[in-house]
Parts: sequence; structure tokens; C-alpha cells
Amino acid sequence: MSLRKVCVVITARPSYARIKTALRAIRDHPELELQLVVGASALLERYGAPVDYIEQDGFEIATRVYMVLEGENLVTSAKSTGLGLVELATVFDNLRPDVVLTVADRYETLATAAAAAYTNIPVAHVQGGEVTGSIDEKVRHAVTKLSDVHLVSTQRAAEYVIRMGEDPACVFVTGGPDIDLAAEILDEPELELDPFDQYGGVGERFPLDDGYAVVIQHPVTTEYKEARTQITETLEALHGLAIPTLWFWPNPDAGSDDTSKGIRVFRENVKPPLIHFFRNMPPESFLRLLHGSRVIVGNSSVAIREGSFLGVPAVNIGDRQAGREHGRNVLHVDYERREIAEAALAQVENGRYPSEHIYGDGHAGGRIAETLASCELRIEKRLCY
Amino acid sequence: MSLRKVCVVITARPSYARIKTALRAIRDHPELELQLVVGASALLERYGAPVDYIEQDGFEIATRVYMVLEGENLVTSAKSTGLGLVELATVFDNLRPDVVLTVADRYETLATAAAAAYTNIPVAHVQGGEVTGSIDEKVRHAVTKLSDVHLVSTQRAAEYVIRMGEDPACVFVTGGPDIDLAAEILDEPELELDPFDQYGGVGERFPLDDGYAVVIQHPVTTEYKEARTQITETLEALHGLAIPTLWFWPNPDAGSDDTSKGIRVFRENVKPPLIHFFRNMPPESFLRLLHGSRVIVGNSSVAIREGSFLGVPAVNIGDRQAGREHGRNVLHVDYERREIAEAALAQVENGRYPSEHIYGDGHAGGRIAETLASCELRIEKRLCY
Amino acid sequence: MSLRKVCVVITARPSYARIKTALRAIRDHPELELQLVVGASALLERYGAPVDYIEQDGFEIATRVYMVLEGENLVTSAKSTGLGLVELATVFDNLRPDVVLTVADRYETLATAAAAAYTNIPVAHVQGGEVTGSIDEKVRHAVTKLSDVHLVSTQRAAEYVIRMGEDPACVFVTGGPDIDLAAEILDEPELELDPFDQYGGVGERFPLDDGYAVVIQHPVTTEYKEARTQITETLEALHGLAIPTLWFWPNPDAGSDDTSKGIRVFRENVKPPLIHFFRNMPPESFLRLLHGSRVIVGNSSVAIREGSFLGVPAVNIGDRQAGREHGRNVLHVDYERREIAEAALAQVENGRYPSEHIYGDGHAGGRIAETLASCELRIEKRLCY
Amino acid sequence: MSLRKVCVVITARPSYARIKTALRAIRDHPELELQLVVGASALLERYGAPVDYIEQDGFEIATRVYMVLEGENLVTSAKSTGLGLVELATVFDNLRPDVVLTVADRYETLATAAAAAYTNIPVAHVQGGEVTGSIDEKVRHAVTKLSDVHLVSTQRAAEYVIRMGEDPACVFVTGGPDIDLAAEILDEPELELDPFDQYGGVGERFPLDDGYAVVIQHPVTTEYKEARTQITETLEALHGLAIPTLWFWPNPDAGSDDTSKGIRVFRENVKPPLIHFFRNMPPESFLRLLHGSRVIVGNSSVAIREGSFLGVPAVNIGDRQAGREHGRNVLHVDYERREIAEAALAQVENGRYPSEHIYGDGHAGGRIAETLASCELRIEKRLCY
Repeated sequence: MSLRKVCVVITARPSYARIKTALRAIRDHPELELQLVVGASALLERYGAPVDYIEQDGFEIATRVYMVLEGENLVTSAKSTGLGLVELATVFDNLRPDVVLTVADRYETLATAAAAAYTNIPVAHVQGGEVTGSIDEKVRHAVTKLSDVHLVSTQRAAEYVIRMGEDPACVFVTGGPDIDLAAEILDEPELELDPFDQYGGVGERFPLDDGYAVVIQHPVTTEYKEARTQITETLEALHGLAIPTLWFWPNPDAGSDDTSKGIRVFRENVKPPLIHFFRNMPPESFLRLLHGSRVIVGNSSVAIREGSFLGVPAVNIGDRQAGREHGRNVLHVDYERREIAEAALAQVENGRYPSEHIYGDGHAGGRIAETLASCELRIEKRLCY
Repeated sequence: MSLRKVCVVITARPSYARIKTALRAIRDHPELELQLVVGASALLERYGAPVDYIEQDGFEIATRVYMVLEGENLVTSAKSTGLGLVELATVFDNLRPDVVLTVADRYETLATAAAAAYTNIPVAHVQGGEVTGSIDEKVRHAVTKLSDVHLVSTQRAAEYVIRMGEDPACVFVTGGPDIDLAAEILDEPELELDPFDQYGGVGERFPLDDGYAVVIQHPVTTEYKEARTQITETLEALHGLAIPTLWFWPNPDAGSDDTSKGIRVFRENVKPPLIHFFRNMPPESFLRLLHGSRVIVGNSSVAIREGSFLGVPAVNIGDRQAGREHGRNVLHVDYERREIAEAALAQVENGRYPSEHIYGDGHAGGRIAETLASCELRIEKRLCY
Repeated sequence: MSLRKVCVVITARPSYARIKTALRAIRDHPELELQLVVGASALLERYGAPVDYIEQDGFEIATRVYMVLEGENLVTSAKSTGLGLVELATVFDNLRPDVVLTVADRYETLATAAAAAYTNIPVAHVQGGEVTGSIDEKVRHAVTKLSDVHLVSTQRAAEYVIRMGEDPACVFVTGGPDIDLAAEILDEPELELDPFDQYGGVGERFPLDDGYAVVIQHPVTTEYKEARTQITETLEALHGLAIPTLWFWPNPDAGSDDTSKGIRVFRENVKPPLIHFFRNMPPESFLRLLHGSRVIVGNSSVAIREGSFLGVPAVNIGDRQAGREHGRNVLHVDYERREIAEAALAQVENGRYPSEHIYGDGHAGGRIAETLASCELRIEKRLCY
Repeated sequence: MSLRKVCVVITARPSYARIKTALRAIRDHPELELQLVVGASALLERYGAPVDYIEQDGFEIATRVYMVLEGENLVTSAKSTGLGLVELATVFDNLRPDVVLTVADRYETLATAAAAAYTNIPVAHVQGGEVTGSIDEKVRHAVTKLSDVHLVSTQRAAEYVIRMGEDPACVFVTGGPDIDLAAEILDEPELELDPFDQYGGVGERFPLDDGYAVVIQHPVTTEYKEARTQITETLEALHGLAIPTLWFWPNPDAGSDDTSKGIRVFRENVKPPLIHFFRNMPPESFLRLLHGSRVIVGNSSVAIREGSFLGVPAVNIGDRQAGREHGRNVLHVDYERREIAEAALAQVENGRYPSEHIYGDGHAGGRIAETLASCELRIEKRLCY
């Protein structure tokens, strides 16, 4: 029997964390062959060259594709996606996979889904059926409509995918592979090495033993002109709290340039003594730092997904995650420095929350591989109403 | 008050017929400004250069964009869409419309919808919520998820769009502008000129006075390797019936090359005395010919949409239109010459059907313009569940 | 010692004939590894899918890249080249060749040369230094300026390349591999099979025993609006002469659509009994037919290059080959039916010419492989004045 | 008489300075109409959004095109050029200029030249015939071979263009418009405002009254892996000299990321008190600062071109400008900190040089406009040997 060829396209740092345990399980499954394509910001130095971590983790890369246009605005997001669609069609034509796996809802994932759907290759989609704000919401559900196999994280997501007209027989609640990584970290939570030594970054160094905050804040594409104001509110809030803070650079999205500029100008002017900025690190190191933190602040889904599993207190800012299922660990605030500071303080004082298994139980990767090995793969579908 | 700029992207001959009366109404609306972009096969000689008809109809073209890759296979469909996305992003960045209108479900319409959605321009979609087979089904619903305003043809389509999670306040049952054209033809059904003289084409000429059939058969992208067999069955069926036949060339889709080759080889070998092949004509001339015909055979939606309005007996072949709402004028058969011939004969004997208003009442164009002038335009949405 | 990886990009039917013996010699050379990329019209059914002949000849294809935009006009030529540049950069980034070989002067060869030059891969160019008309002239010399190793056909070409400022140490007179194929045909000139049976085509069949003409006429890109008139003159000339004629379809260039239309309309209206139209055949079969012909008519370089070697009388029309070195076998005429007919008649009466070794002696392929194995490969150069 | 439409494509900050006075002269010429296209890094915030200065200077922009791929390596340079070629073909197809003007030798200028040449639009090239190192050398001469009108800066450049086979009747020694700007500055050399206030940048501020150095150092694409070492040598040299230094950020080229990283790490670690880093300013402000400086250090052509006109002592590092004509104001050194420091010191001690008119006399812009208005525009050419 010939192996099913599963082509996975990784286009960004967070997508790798969201799929890593599934990659491992696919690679190791006796009936599957992994074809790994790495492209977009996952290749770029400016975002820490996640491709290096992928190779260090022992994955062989079939094809690399540069596709991100400079500008980090809305026009270049669209063009990057178009370029990805052009080139991924060539890649799939040469690799000839049996199924293509696309991850979550970043704008460029539409290119992966469309390139496969248009070339009659079944599309499997991880993390469909969730609800958030911004362009991600449109992309996620458009990808669902281009996909044939739905590997969702939660029961509600499964229900939503089916309500959108997908065949229930093609919807599988696997949990999210991002939670698998979090579960692994729970078993071995200690940091091996000093993160400042190991991952560099810019800004002052400080001891982490007395607790620290983690911040990740992305620009919101539908409000991208406010990116700079929004990041400044959070910078002021954290600086004012005077809590040691590990700050992670945003994804390359419309607005990142303004977010980056906001950070750079703040650093030049304020020289905050207790904020250190990291560009990138392997997902496990990040999760260990997250696990050890007193609070995570920002608008990243990590606060809600991995955060609830790890029981890390979270302050979620703005609408970017609005509509997403979340646990008790989350407080919601606006892009307003006083609100942010107060909520962060409250969370630090509250301390760790009990673990909740909203987005998975730590075994998603294996379930995904198993589903891909056994499910029926077809490309013809119709609204199931 | 400044005018709302409505950018409409026309990428194919049939899309023009499907939107023409709306274009007129938008152009003539006192609160709207029309920005017309013509691209893809609508520019190509090989498909009759529909752009020429568009200009002859008095529309001014803002930008032209070549984007179709040669090959007419699945890979080139994907790449054409990607290229369209790259270039339409530039076009929208320069034209700066207030809303972009995208039509129906051809593969390249995803480029229009994504380019607008990604650049925070509200997207209005005509003909969402319908059900058919092939990649069109995936594209249509993916476009719905990228769109903000839904201008649907039927009550059922409205219901389906809402069930997919769209906000009912953004769904408008306007009817299809293609039906408007059919309604205009009902008022003036006579052909002014001999179609052979006027539109050329290849094959024998013959008198049309004693009745004739019309054929349009497209390749089905999910079965595109069968395109040649499928076209041959229909050619044999019509040739065997010995009824004068006006045959219209297919769209440029994956499989068109095989469909074309099937037609060419049949012509070379059989030299059918009663089949004439047209490449293109203005939609009105086509509709007059359709209106005057005894039966339409093939797998085009025109048989089901305009056909039911005009009461033309139709033989629909295969799954391409499966799931679509249809009237009493349609008989369904397989890609099998005997079945096709028998159904065609039965329909010719049956004669004309009463008009049914399934896809519109002839006033869609005006309703679309009015809706675009008055509806709230926003880009932020979430699943309405 | 590791092998030198030589990447060759084939983008069209004629380019394959022009490089085939070099491909063989590279593949078989103990110090070289061949990486074959097939793209553009070499993949397309419409041009006879030359990729099939390439595979039948036993070459393994590393990557396939669709890149031709439909339209066959000047705009789409430019865009196809741009798309080729985008994608070939990805291909080279993944294949990592030590040297890239680009062939002659078709518009899309600039994409190959630029993709390699920009990525610091040495470029070897076959057929530089020649002089012709049309955009080919600009492309050929631009490619020379992007190239590092020049594998030219004639002494004059070598001199011209050096006068353009290239380092004489990097210029090698190898002869053209197209002539190698012609030389092989001289040893075994008999057609094995009936070309009508084997390669199909359209039009009447007729016996070839009493002599026949061969025609290849391409549109001229700088005069591309005259393509239809130009082809009609030649069609009328040959039809008038009433000599059996094997006519070969043109390359996909700006103007091909008009050339094709000219041919189609002529066929429909005139139904010429003695002209048969072929779309494609392997280069060897074509050369056998050329070798057996009484005269070759048109504007293809084959009449001048292979024609002089084989001693086939040639009628060269127009400026497309103006400036090219040629032998005694060539008469020059304008795009004018009477001139064409008279010259063709004169050539038929004259009969075969003695073989001339202007463009090579039949051993170019081996010399090219040897040069690529032994020459210094560097990427830094300056005008040698 | 209808105006000749001259389309100029600006793709980078330095290209604007090199063409600005010609833009003015074209805009103001009674027989010319200017069509200005701004694209690539000229649109990007990261490079100071030169588009803003262009608009502030009163030029109207016809079309904007994002085309730079992120990565700043060799692969993305090639892909950016390919994307530019794809999109500029569309732009020219819509603007329909009579002549396209392309500037100098940046990698993406090949896209402008090829898009125009392939679409039968005459190409005028500014700054052909010069000799330097790196990929620029290949690009510059390839652009010459695609161009029809040569607007060169020096007599030697004219001679070289002719020796490359261009028709002497199409070669015009106009001088460089960059020198025009320098000449204007000679008339009004005083800085109006404090550059730190006006243009921001990062690093310490310091008084400029006692003299300062200017540094511009670009990565060299053919040595791009050494970019970081090379920049560090210069940083150490200037830091060691303890002379106030205004440092200008490099262009977006292969290697810029490493150059930038070298600068950032040096700043973080060394915190040099006497180096201030600017990202962008209008060319006039830059030239005033250059005029007032004691020495310019690096590998920019500005040191050699404008530098010789202004008499500013220059230290040119490495091979990037090797082969270029230069005046007495230039000392050549290697990428070696001690050599750089010693040469800089020697130049500071030497003081200002007399002005030399090597690259122009200050009237190039008008000559270029006049030539474009009066010269014959044709697209057919052949090697003139």
C-alpha cells in the first residue's frame, strides 16, 4: 500500500507551534508521508527565522517559498496571499500530495487552501469553527468553505462548522496541537537556560525569580491605523506597573510596522528598565516562560488557548479575540492604559488558575495524524442543508 | 455629499451578462460612481473579447488586467486566481472604491473578494447562497464568508446565506440581473440580424425557421479529465438528432482544452452538417437565440436560470448544476448520448413552458444599485449564531 | 569531488531542439548533474505538450512551472516573463544549481537569466552574439549582459560578444546543438512513419513522394499588428503554387492569436487541398521532413541554421532574421504573395544546396558539456574595455 | 499636436534624487506630459516613505505599486523584480506612455525596462555606460541592451554604450540630474533647520559646528554574506575616530538585513556617543549635510558623483564602485577598520577639494526633457557593428 502524502504548509512562527505535534505524528505514522513546505514569514530573519527551529526539530523541508511583500499594510497582505497562491499551486503540482493541511486563520492560509482546493487536492483545516474579530474571522470561515476535512479544537467549533453547511461526517473534534505542547511543558516546566543569554533580544536584563509578565500584542488589521496608539497604551501600562516584562514581537501583519515603530520610539524615549523585547524563540521555550509568568497581557490567542490550559492569568485587550471561547483565566479590557494596568495587577494578585481543557486535552497531534490516515478523502461537496 | 464609489470586476463573458443591468443602474444612480475593472478572459480574443461588447454598451473601463494563465487546467486556475489577487490589490489601492462588487462563483472571483476583504473594502456579492457542484460550490461559499453585503437571487439562497452565519441585516433578495436581460428580451424577442452573418463562427449554415437547439456545455473542474468524453456524448447526441444546432464555446476553465479538442476532432472527422459553433456574442443576441430555440442542452446555469424565465425546454446534463433550484422546464440526464437525445426529443415535442420567476422578476439591477447606495457598509463581522 | 549541478530551463518547443544534444551530454558527463526545469509553453497542450517528448527521450524533470499568460500579446509576454522570474527564483533557491543554462533569445529566457544572475548563480548562455530583428534582438543581448559563460555558435558571434564588453576568456565557440540534431538526421534521413498518421494535424492528406514544401512563419513582435496580413500572404502564395505543403504552427508569441486566426479563416474559406497543418512533432521528425523537402518558406531561424547545414533551399520572409549570418541556400523576400511564390518556385527549381557549417559542425552538445565541466564559474564581471 | 507621454518609474529613495530635476523639466516642458509611477521601496515606511517627499515636491502620482518581497536576500531581489515586471506591464498597458524612462542600475530597474521593451514602448535610460561592481554592473548593461535612448552622464559612458553596439544617434551626453541637485545646493548651502529635530533618527545628538563625517554603506550583493562584517569594520573605524558622524541607513538590497543587524547590535552593545543614524530625508537636505561634511565614508556612488562636484573628501570602501570614473576627492580602501580610519583622517586633514564636473554640469534635467521631446522614438534596433 502506498503512503498517503500529507503536505503541510507553515507560513509563520505561531502556525508552527499550532501544528508541531501533528507534524511529528504525521511524520511517524506508518501510513503517512509528510511533505513540509515552509514559506512566508517563517523564512524571515526579521521574525526570527522560525525555519531554523523547524529544522533543528528534525523536520526535513521539501520546499521553501518566499512570499511576503514588504509594507505590512493591507495591500501587501493581499498581494502576499496572491503570490502564495501562485507559487503554492506550482509546489503542489510538483509534490502531488494526497491531502493538504492548512492551519488556523492567518491571511496567507487562504492561499494554501485555495491552491489545494483549485487543484482538486482535499484540504484538511485545523482550528476551523472558532470565532474572533478582524480579517481572521473572514479568512477562517472562507478556508472552512474551501476545506474537505475539519480538524477542530472544540465541540462548539464542530457545531459551528456543521451549521455553516459542512458534512458532519467530515468534522472531527481533535483538540488543538498547540495544547499538546502546553501539556508537554506541564510535565517539564523548568527553563534550562537563561532566556536573555539564549535568545538575545533587546532591552535591559533583570532577574525573573520574583515574577514577571509576558506581553504579546498584534496589530488588528481592521483597525490597523490605530496600531501605534494601541501598542503605546500597553507599553505605558506595563512600564507604569514596574513589573519585569518579557515582550514578544508581533507577527508580520498589516499594522506591524506601526506597532514596531511604537515599540522603537518608546524604547528610545523612555528606555524602560524592566521590559525586554524578544523577537523569537522555539515554542517550547516560550511556553515555559509563559507557564512561569504571573500574567500574560495583550491580544494573542495564546493567552486564551494555551493560557487556560496552563492556568496563566490573562488580560485580553480589545476585540481581536472577541467571540472566542475562553476560560476563567481571562479578563477583558480596552486599549486603555489604566484599564490594562488595573487588570494586570488584579491578575497578578489572583495568582494561577486551575487548568481548563477547552481547546484540547494534549493528544490532538496523534488524533490528527490518525484521522488523516483513515478518513475518506474526497473533493466534491455541497451545502449540507 | 460625495458619491459612493462602486468597483465592479468583470472577468468573463457570462459574468458580464449576469451583472449588466446592475452596471447600468449603478452608473445611472445619482449617489453612486461606477469603477469598472475588466480582466481575465473578458479581455481575450479566444473568448470573443467580451471587453469589446462592454465598451460598445457605453461603459468606461477604469483598468484592464490580464491574469489568465494558459493551460486551462487546475494548476493554472489556481495561479490565475493568485495573479488576480496580486494585481487587483494594486488596482483597488489606486482606485480606492467604497465597495467592491463580485459576481457569482467563477474561480477567479475569489481573487476579487479576497483583494477587497484584505484591504478593508466592503465586499458585495451577487448570487451567493446557491447550490451546485464542482469547485464553484466551494468558491461561492468562500466568497460569501469574505463578503459583507449579500445580493441574492432567491429566498432559499437568502436563507442559506443566513444559515451559514451571515447577519440577516446584510442579506438582500434582489433577484439576479441576468433575469433582467431575459425580461428585456421578452419584450423584444425578434432577432434583428442573421447570427451567422453577424457573429461568424465555424461550421455549416442552415435555416433557423423550422426550429433549432442551443448547446452550451462546460468542462466540470472536479471531473476535468472526462471533459473530452463528456463533450463527445453530447456532440453525438445532437448530430444523431439531426436538429439544427447552435453550439456555444465553453468558458476557459480546467478542461476547456479537452472540450475544445473534442469539438475540433469531431468537426474534422464528422463534419456535422447541422451544427454551427459560435465563440461569442453579446448577451442580448444570445438570449434572443435562446428564446427562439426549441430546447437548450448542456450543463450551463443559463438553461436553469434564464431558461425557466423564458420558458425554454432544457436538458441538463450531469452534476454541474446539481442542487440548484430549478423550474419545470428542466429534464436531468447523464453524460450519455442516448439519454441526452431522448430527453432533447421529448422537450422539443413538449414545446415551450410557462415562464417562472425563480431567479428574479426582471428588476434586480435597480434593486442592487439602490441597496449599494443605501445599505450600511462595514467590514467587521462575526458568525451570527 | 561533488558533481557540478547544471540547471537547464526549457520553455518552448524550439528551445528543446536547440539544446537537446547538450542535455544528453550534460546528463552523461561524469562530472555533471543535470537538473531539468520545464515550463511555459513547453508544458502546454496547445503547443503540442513538448514536455511529453522530453520525457519520452528519457530526461527526468526536476520541476514544472506554468507561466504563460493567455492573450499572446505584448502585455502578456511581459507578464509571463515576470511570472517566470518570480517562480524560477523559487525553483533555483530549492534546486541550488552551480550553473544555470539558458537558451537563445525567446522573451521568457530573460526570466531564467535574471533569476540566476540575481541569486548569484553563474549563467551560461547558448546562442548569444547573433543578430536578428524584433524583440529577440534586445532580449538576446540583455541575456548576454546577465551571463557569465557564453557558448556561441559562430566565430562572428564570439567576436560580437567580446565587442559588447565580455571577457574573451569566458566566450566559447561551441557551435549550436541544433546543428548536432541536423547532423544526426543526415546519417539516417528516412522517415520511419507516415507523418499524417503519426502526428495528426488538420487539413487534407496527400502523397509526399513528388516533393513538398515546409512552412513555419512566426508573428513578429515589433510588427505584431500585421501578423494576420503577413500570414495570409504566405498562405495565398503557397496555395497558388499548388505544391503539397506541410505547415507548422507558430510559437506562442505576441501576435500568435492573429496568425492562428489568419490560418483558421483561410482554412474555413479556402479549404486548401494541398496544405496540412501540424501543431507539433519531435525535433528529429521535423528535421527529417525538412531534409526531404524541396523548399522551406517563412521566417524561422531553422531555415537559416539547420537549413544551411542540410542544404535545403529556403525562402526567408521579412526582417525577422535580418542581420543573421546565412548561407547560399537562402533567398530573401518581403511579406508579399507574388514575391514569395516566385522565390519558392526558383528554389524548387534550383534544388538542394551543398551543406555549409555556419552554425556548427555537429559536435556542439559535447563541447558545451565539457566547457561547463571545466570552465571557471564566477559571477563578478565588469565591462572589458 | 498631442503631448508625448513620458512615464517615469521611481522605485527607491536614491533613484528619486537621481532623476528629480529631470522630473521637473519633463513636467514643465510644453511638449511633454509626465506620468509618474512610484513603487517598490519608494513606498515603504521602513525606507522613510520617499513617496511623501515626492508628493511634497508637487508631483502627482499616477500609480503606486508595492513590489518588494521581504527577506532582503538574493532570492527576494529576483522575485521583487519579477513581480515588478508583472505589474508594470499592467500599469503601462493602462497608462499607454510614448516613452518610459528608467533610472540607473538598481535590480528592479530591469523590470521597468523589460516591461516597456516587451510592450513595444521605447525605453530611455539614464546613467548607462558606467562601470561598477556587483549585480548593478550586469543590470545596468542589460538595461542598456533593452533601451532605445541613452541619456548618459559622461563622455566615457557614451563611448562605452556605443562600443556595446548601440546606435551613436541614440546616445546623448546629458550629464546626471543628481549633479543638478548638487549644483542647486552650491548656490544655497546653508541648512535651514536642525537635522536631528527635523528628521529624527536614532542615537545621540551632538553639535555639528566643529565638523562631522557622513557615512553611507550598502551591502554588496555579490558578497552579501559579508555584509555584517563589512559594516562592523566601518562602525568600529568611525567610532574609534571619535568624529561626529551622520550615518544613513542602506537601501533594501540583498544583505540589508545583515547590515541593519550589524548596526543594531553595535548600537546596543557600544552605544556610540558620536554616531547618529538617519533613515531618510529629502535629497536636498542630504546634499546640504554632505556639502558641509569633512569627509564621506562608505561605498555609495554619491561620494564619487555628487562628492566630486561638491569637492567633499571621500573614502570609498571595497569594490562596489570599482571601475567607476572618479575625481581627485576619492581615496580607495578595503573593508578594514584601520585602513578606513587612516584614510578618513587623511581626508579630514586634507580639507575640501576643488569642484570637478565629471558627472555633469548642473543642467542635465533640462537636457533630458529636451531630448525626450525631440528625439526620434523607435523600438527596432540591431547591434551597430
